[in-house]
Amino acid sequence: MEKRKQKPLRSNIAWSTPDRIGVFGYDLPGELIGHVNLGDMGFLEIMGRLPSAAESQVFNALLVTLVEHGVTPSAIATRMTYTGAPESMQAAVAAGLLGLGTVFVGTIEGAAKILSEAVPDPKADVSLADLADTIVARHRQAKQSLPGIGHPIHKPVDPRVPRLFEVARVNGFDDPYIRLMELIAEKAEREYRRQLPVNATGAIGAICCELGLPWQVCRGLGVMARAVGLVGHILEESRNPIALELWHRTDEEASSDVRGKLRSDTPTAE
Amino acid sequence: MEKRKQKPLRSNIAWSTPDRIGVFGYDLPGELIGHVNLGDMGFLEIMGRLPSAAESQVFNALLVTLVEHGVTPSAIATRMTYTGAPESMQAAVAAGLLGLGTVFVGTIEGAAKILSEAVPDPKADVSLADLADTIVARHRQAKQSLPGIGHPIHKPVDPRVPRLFEVARVNGFDDPYIRLMELIAEKAEREYRRQLPVNATGAIGAICCELGLPWQVCRGLGVMARAVGLVGHILEESRNPIALELWHRTDEEASSDVRGKLRSDTPTAE
Amino acid sequence: MEKRKQKPLRSNIAWSTPDRIGVFGYDLPGELIGHVNLGDMGFLEIMGRLPSAAESQVFNALLVTLVEHGVTPSAIATRMTYTGAPESMQAAVAAGLLGLGTVFVGTIEGAAKILSEAVPDPKADVSLADLADTIVARHRQAKQSLPGIGHPIHKPVDPRVPRLFEVARVNGFDDPYIRLMELIAEKAEREYRRQLPVNATGAIGAICCELGLPWQVCRGLGVMARAVGLVGHILEESRNPIALELWHRTDEEASSDVRGKLRSDTPTAE
Amino acid sequence: MEKRKQKPLRSNIAWSTPDRIGVFGYDLPGELIGHVNLGDMGFLEIMGRLPSAAESQVFNALLVTLVEHGVTPSAIATRMTYTGAPESMQAAVAAGLLGLGTVFVGTIEGAAKILSEAVPDPKADVSLADLADTIVARHRQAKQSLPGIGHPIHKPVDPRVPRLFEVARVNGFDDPYIRLMELIAEKAEREYRRQLPVNATGAIGAICCELGLPWQVCRGLGVMARAVGLVGHILEESRNPIALELWHRTDEEASSDVRGKLRSDTPTAE
Repeated sequence: MEKRKQKPLRSNIAWSTPDRIGVFGYDLPGELIGHVNLGDMGFLEIMGRLPSAAESQVFNALLVTLVEHGVTPSAIATRMTYTGAPESMQAAVAAGLLGLGTVFVGTIEGAAKILSEAVPDPKADVSLADLADTIVARHRQAKQSLPGIGHPIHKPVDPRVPRLFEVARVNGFDDPYIRLMELIAEKAEREYRRQLPVNATGAIGAICCELGLPWQVCRGLGVMARAVGLVGHILEESRNPIALELWHRTDEEASSDVRGKLRSDTPTAE
Repeated sequence: MEKRKQKPLRSNIAWSTPDRIGVFGYDLPGELIGHVNLGDMGFLEIMGRLPSAAESQVFNALLVTLVEHGVTPSAIATRMTYTGAPESMQAAVAAGLLGLGTVFVGTIEGAAKILSEAVPDPKADVSLADLADTIVARHRQAKQSLPGIGHPIHKPVDPRVPRLFEVARVNGFDDPYIRLMELIAEKAEREYRRQLPVNATGAIGAICCELGLPWQVCRGLGVMARAVGLVGHILEESRNPIALELWHRTDEEASSDVRGKLRSDTPTAE
Repeated sequence: MEKRKQKPLRSNIAWSTPDRIGVFGYDLPGELIGHVNLGDMGFLEIMGRLPSAAESQVFNALLVTLVEHGVTPSAIATRMTYTGAPESMQAAVAAGLLGLGTVFVGTIEGAAKILSEAVPDPKADVSLADLADTIVARHRQAKQSLPGIGHPIHKPVDPRVPRLFEVARVNGFDDPYIRLMELIAEKAEREYRRQLPVNATGAIGAICCELGLPWQVCRGLGVMARAVGLVGHILEESRNPIALELWHRTDEEASSDVRGKLRSDTPTAE
Repeated sequence: MEKRKQKPLRSNIAWSTPDRIGVFGYDLPGELIGHVNLGDMGFLEIMGRLPSAAESQVFNALLVTLVEHGVTPSAIATRMTYTGAPESMQAAVAAGLLGLGTVFVGTIEGAAKILSEAVPDPKADVSLADLADTIVARHRQAKQSLPGIGHPIHKPVDPRVPRLFEVARVNGFDDPYIRLMELIAEKAEREYRRQLPVNATGAIGAICCELGLPWQVCRGLGVMARAVGLVGHILEESRNPIALELWHRTDEEASSDVRGKLRSDTPTAE
């Protein structure tokens, strides 16, 4: 085989020397530890710079919203894993994160993608109402569901959404993605003639656009936040377990149709 | 089989109704979103209550320290996974978290365990110097390494440690675990006659004890923080990849002794 | 909230009573243990019945091909994870499996999807040559790469492919998917004027179609097989480690551009 | 920093050249594909050589036993993950594998460790009855449970065990680990005065010792086998889902004590 030409390996995120540690160009002990919070570090990892006070408040609000939803499929996967491998808390958290795919966090991504593609330049002078009409019509025609609107429980308003939009607006993030998201929901409610409020993932997708995050990274916010929440589920499971009971109930019920039955019991013509 | 008696399933972490969401008894939109940061949510998940301002600053400082260490084994696992499954960011983060086991985060746990077992009651009147001597002697006799002291690069001082202890002390977390950790390192340096400063994991373990966290949950801080950092590595990998080059180099070098050799090439007496 | 109506939970895969265990209707001790091999169990899990002798040989041949490819990105992720958490072998294997996404196993799925959609009924009388021409033309026009053909190292022939096709044909799996895969490669070589042999993933995708597996499950063969291979990499890593050296080399090189540099070192006009 | 001396990276598992692929020194197309089954590849990964016909039958029997146990905690974790990320089958399998820790596969390891440490040389002339008495007494005194004996459902005999021992003995693996495992169970039944038959994990641990596998790798057999089984659970979940129903039931019941309750509802003296 001919010799392959090597390419350099480069990562500019962090470095260490005996007496200093740099993270994205900041002095870790001198500028980050004790100065910023965990959410700010998330902003730094995505944007490569620390947030302003306003950005910090808004970005943390998005993360705080995503930390906890009670006994979700993710939390159940985490608790089941912890039951089998209590010595590996990190594996139990990882098991819960693995389900944060297209069904769950996909709608944040989907909303952010639609909004950022509709308005590539937030300063441009465009008719948001026209854009909303076009987006709803296009999805309706393609029989695609619109990400970021509607909720099975939270009706007629998802209680997280007005608060998220308020935090964004108070901090100066006001236009045009939040407004476009609201217009899409209003148009959809008229078109489909049912309650389709902006939901939490729609609001988060819109605010991600306001903050200038690329839509491709929005799933990362869900991952950061949920890792925090799943640690709490492990702690509760260690003190007040539910996984074993859930397992036994499921096993008993699920195999009740076939228990005790074998192919060899059945006389066949074969 | 006799009928198994069902036990109730209980989780008190969170709940939803159409217009409200509760998390550890707090109103999510009204008391958490826009009011607290991601690190505070981590404290809430572990302690079941929001931190005071002082606790918030100290707890966030611990997490901020653990977010990022550059191209670690975890970051490499994440980048390798992302290369094969770029559609599953959550899986790439999970792959990186899976290595946060006894070798890495184990030393935080180990330090916190030693300290909290030595001083079960932080208000008790005990001789910390005597405890430090006993702990070092016990580990030396058993030929066990002491978690939380010594560092291959950061000598004679781990630059994160004075800053972490400063943040703790300024916020009123001053005794006795930090002092005991320092005394252990001093005693160990005298006994082993080499530089064995308190390292970052030792400092974090000690401060966890100051905050009243159970030592069993300390690994969770590493998991929360590193999930945030690994998202940044995925973003950098997507823009400036290193995983493929690293793979090709490794594959070329690693199999160089055996490439082209088969058992069937070798005449044997069998 | 109105009361939700419960649905029954059903799983017909396996059951236990005090003296018997059934798996897909087979008596585990009496009909499976000592009677079938691990690959046959994989066939059973997918098809719900045991394979014939011919099916067993072909299905195992597919799996055997996928077990091992040396130090792949998956193997590196596994070894990095094992280094941090040697107490959790299962987590190290899981980390390696997580990268089996669209880039790697996607081409098996892609090939199987193209072939099974082109020839829904394997008994139908169709012109495979015409189908191959259409498929190549469609991908060329859409500037999409064709899954299952071409290989960076194995040229002009992927040595696994003639053997896989031989095993399939000897066992009576001969038509039409293998032939169509070959015709696609031949047409593509003429169109693109370069060596584009059927590769291992193309051959496996075609043979999956011959066996009647749904294309959606083809990724599962890669997962089954690679789980077996990754255990071997953990064992070798435990005896002759490479992960730490690989980490140190990467860290040293990757941060060489930024090491020691801080934003605060740079005078700015801000 | 002083320059670190690089160490060579070596992995002798597999290699590729344009027309050949070697795996543990075997020619992959010529000696493995179509010649051996998936279980044999597992033996090869662990022992570095292909099994004899007898070894192949016994080793596959162990794996076949471990593939499937119905709706286990692992299967539930896999199904929950699949529900959130149906595009990532590999992640769903990985989530299920993560729970194969000390609680589940630990007993195989534990049994194999006890047996291999008690009889380091299988040819040595020792009194197995005396060894069994000592092992049971030691565990009783230390109030440690004995791995590999007793089962909540399978009493008075685990139906897998006589079959596993039969397959081993028929193939010439007859002494002394199987006998010692039986003697431990007999002694324990007399000492504890209850039914404590050798269970499947005890039998598998004993047979691993007969085959000469190091006890440290026994967990790997569970990982290999269960990866195969979990693919079947994903397929069933895709056709006949249970995860969503299980989630809704759990969420409804688990938060019933706290739903609608907030701290701020409670007048306090604070």
